[in-house]
Amino acid sequence: MSSAFYDSLMSKFKELAMIGSLEGVLNWDSETTLPYNGVEHRTKQVIFLNDLKQKTWGSKEFGDLLQSNLKDETLNDFEKRNLELINREFLRRQKLPPDLMSKLMGQSKKTNEIWKRAKSKNQFSLVLPDLEKLFDLNNQVAVKLAELYGLDDPYDALISTRDYGFSVSKISSIFEENRKFLVPMVKNMSEKSESLDKSFLVREISKEQKQKLAETTVEFFKYKSKSDEHAVIGEVEHPLTIGCGPKDIRVTVKYEKWEKVLFSASHEVGHGIHGWNRNQEWNGLPVNSYNWPSLGECNSRYTENKIGKSREFWEYYYPTFQEVTKGKFSDIGLDQFYQVINRVEPGISRMKADEVTYGLHIIIRFEIERELFAGKVELKDLPQVWNDKYEQYLGVEVPDDTRGVLQDLHWYNVYWAYFQGYALGDIMGSQLHGHMVSQNPGWADSVRNGDFSPVYNYFVDNIYSVGAMFDPLDLIKNVTGEELTTTHFHNYLSAKYENMF
Amino acid sequence: MSSAFYDSLMSKFKELAMIGSLEGVLNWDSETTLPYNGVEHRTKQVIFLNDLKQKTWGSKEFGDLLQSNLKDETLNDFEKRNLELINREFLRRQKLPPDLMSKLMGQSKKTNEIWKRAKSKNQFSLVLPDLEKLFDLNNQVAVKLAELYGLDDPYDALISTRDYGFSVSKISSIFEENRKFLVPMVKNMSEKSESLDKSFLVREISKEQKQKLAETTVEFFKYKSKSDEHAVIGEVEHPLTIGCGPKDIRVTVKYEKWEKVLFSASHEVGHGIHGWNRNQEWNGLPVNSYNWPSLGECNSRYTENKIGKSREFWEYYYPTFQEVTKGKFSDIGLDQFYQVINRVEPGISRMKADEVTYGLHIIIRFEIERELFAGKVELKDLPQVWNDKYEQYLGVEVPDDTRGVLQDLHWYNVYWAYFQGYALGDIMGSQLHGHMVSQNPGWADSVRNGDFSPVYNYFVDNIYSVGAMFDPLDLIKNVTGEELTTTHFHNYLSAKYENMF
Repeated sequence: MSSAFYDSLMSKFKELAMIGSLEGVLNWDSETTLPYNGVEHRTKQVIFLNDLKQKTWGSKEFGDLLQSNLKDETLNDFEKRNLELINREFLRRQKLPPDLMSKLMGQSKKTNEIWKRAKSKNQFSLVLPDLEKLFDLNNQVAVKLAELYGLDDPYDALISTRDYGFSVSKISSIFEENRKFLVPMVKNMSEKSESLDKSFLVREISKEQKQKLAETTVEFFKYKSKSDEHAVIGEVEHPLTIGCGPKDIRVTVKYEKWEKVLFSASHEVGHGIHGWNRNQEWNGLPVNSYNWPSLGECNSRYTENKIGKSREFWEYYYPTFQEVTKGKFSDIGLDQFYQVINRVEPGISRMKADEVTYGLHIIIRFEIERELFAGKVELKDLPQVWNDKYEQYLGVEVPDDTRGVLQDLHWYNVYWAYFQGYALGDIMGSQLHGHMVSQNPGWADSVRNGDFSPVYNYFVDNIYSVGAMFDPLDLIKNVTGEELTTTHFHNYLSAKYENMF
Repeated sequence: MSSAFYDSLMSKFKELAMIGSLEGVLNWDSETTLPYNGVEHRTKQVIFLNDLKQKTWGSKEFGDLLQSNLKDETLNDFEKRNLELINREFLRRQKLPPDLMSKLMGQSKKTNEIWKRAKSKNQFSLVLPDLEKLFDLNNQVAVKLAELYGLDDPYDALISTRDYGFSVSKISSIFEENRKFLVPMVKNMSEKSESLDKSFLVREISKEQKQKLAETTVEFFKYKSKSDEHAVIGEVEHPLTIGCGPKDIRVTVKYEKWEKVLFSASHEVGHGIHGWNRNQEWNGLPVNSYNWPSLGECNSRYTENKIGKSREFWEYYYPTFQEVTKGKFSDIGLDQFYQVINRVEPGISRMKADEVTYGLHIIIRFEIERELFAGKVELKDLPQVWNDKYEQYLGVEVPDDTRGVLQDLHWYNVYWAYFQGYALGDIMGSQLHGHMVSQNPGWADSVRNGDFSPVYNYFVDNIYSVGAMFDPLDLIKNVTGEELTTTHFHNYLSAKYENMF
């Protein structure tokens, strides 16, 4: 039974969520539009909103309200969950000194800018001093969180904060199972992929055609936020999805090679449908405000790969693809096309990696992070460690830092302990896919006919609308009836690739 | 001598200015990007920021700080001016009940939406009931302001709030002088314009070419906020300029007929250079936060007309125009082109009006507003009154409400008592132009050579960087040494049109 205390606390939290949505608009604008002369003031705007949030989180009134609520035994499960989510964040913020957090924020912005330069100049050493400062600040945060959670390993504490319920040891064992499965499969399938005629991949199409490909792809995935008057597929340097309001969640695309445009659009729209299918009655509440890398990337990698690279989807979409590209690929049959977009090709780029090698890219990053936080690797040795692991796990040689250790923005932007989410997401997505198939035996025919509804509705009902009511491992168990397991992921890949080439 | 009290008050005000810049970003986003599904939450975001400002304005702390400062006799003139500007706004807000203001805000948003539909359906009656509600709420505001200022006429109070220092009687007498001058000139020049071969105006060019015209136009006017990576010329339905930060002030364009694109770009960039040439040391202070319709439109109409339609500008820019439009106008000589873009043509559209007829469009609106607030005209009769005045002053017949009383958004968006600014701006701009010419005899040759600097620097030094240090009439007097007079405007038009046709 909701109380006046509870309602007051939730109304305070809704203000925090509102500020979050304003941060979303600033973020969208920074990524898509902000002119150079606006950067300085934009930083001040971001700090202003952050201070505004901190003012609420740090106020005696908020703390007292929270404590009163935590003692209230009349609350129902839904209310208790909202409290639990607030309390987690409250404890985290209480533990972390505001000046440390603003130093971290400032250093993160600075390092991110320098990373861009270092990447364009192919010089890791340029960003190293700032990366060291950033890592040190972030490590201080991690140490404090480890104290809070009673954990020995600061990296474990970061993982716990990002992907609640996971631990370093659990992820290590999952990834070890994955590595054992993936390495031989990569070897086998990449050999078979070698003989494919992939030459059509480098054919160029116009920007307008790429835009049309992105639009028709996201339309299939029920990207409904688009009105006739307004473009809401943003053009950015690094594709991402940005929430500006409960129903206003915008995907972005970089108009690079057409293959990348297609699959990055289907990746981002996965974040989109997750976002705008949350339960609208819960807007502004904690259950609609929190998310985890694993579950978030589960949705985006699901639409990108399980659907976006499925035979079923391409049986439907290939005529559209041919029409949009106006005969440029008229000599390529669906079979060849399907094989080529699913080729297995050990490479140096995570973003361009296929479904099979992808997990190995993540394992490399996870292991490096684990060793960095354990003090077993130093940041100055990152390029060497990186290149060695690419040689060892994927058998490829990294030609330079731009395409190596500088390729991803995460580490230069405080996204430590984030990468695991992409691979855990693949595993979760496979388990959900298996369950979805058992519930909707007709899904494949629907997709072949251009109807994404059965898949969409399954995810809306079981995942999207559930918000953060459950932590990721609990959610998977609740929905599928099984603990998280790599079995479905491995079975899915085996079945998909069995007769592929 | 600045005091701790003064500094505290200014730091409170800087927060209000910061929130204002966030409103700017929301406004930009709403105009350029916002998808339909985001509209509902956007309204909530706008209300949230508005409440946040109201919380400061209405706080005891802010009121006490202001009162302490007002008693402080040690402050210097600059500090006193900042206080004066805050105090004006404070008194205004104190006088106006918050619930009336939020009703007005809500009704304004609603009426604006319905106006769009009424305009597209050519049915004034559709918007009439909401316009009546809006006018009534705004009239309540005006009555309260009249009490505050000790004025008899509520319309006078609105004018005083918008264009500080002006009164209805002063504007009436200025406009009467203008009318007497303009009516015969319109007759004379429109007869001469009739024989011009204007057929090239309807030639179509591509959207890319229009974009290039807008870009090269604003470049001439030193639109510097543009970096290579980011587009900051927004595409919108109704062009406007939006400030998102002290140096981040964005112009927008609607890609309609090429002539309109050119002159609307040069209009908006006038607002732009005004905005980003404010004194950067005063960022967030009242002297940099307030502006008036008259002075604002003075700058935009100056760049649009005095420069953008000048012979000097076109001697420089015509080759660029020819190049961008790739031969589409190669048969049109500069003389003919210059005459045609300066044709005098009584018409029904304010936005498309030439320099000479423009003032009559404004007089019509001013007189209607004056009579509405005096209760001499009823809103239901607006279409008839409007059409009669167009017949009387411009000799044109208004064919429908879409192109008549529904053409401008102002009245449907609480911009009552705003229109006078456009015509007063023309008059101010002419007086400043006269003075600028006397200070920079070489300005015309510079512009002919593509160098806007002498004109630009004059306005930066005398107007833009001065911010709101002086009210508009004082500023004009300070700069030119003369009281505001229509003489320069009339002389300017006479000289320009003397040998035009």
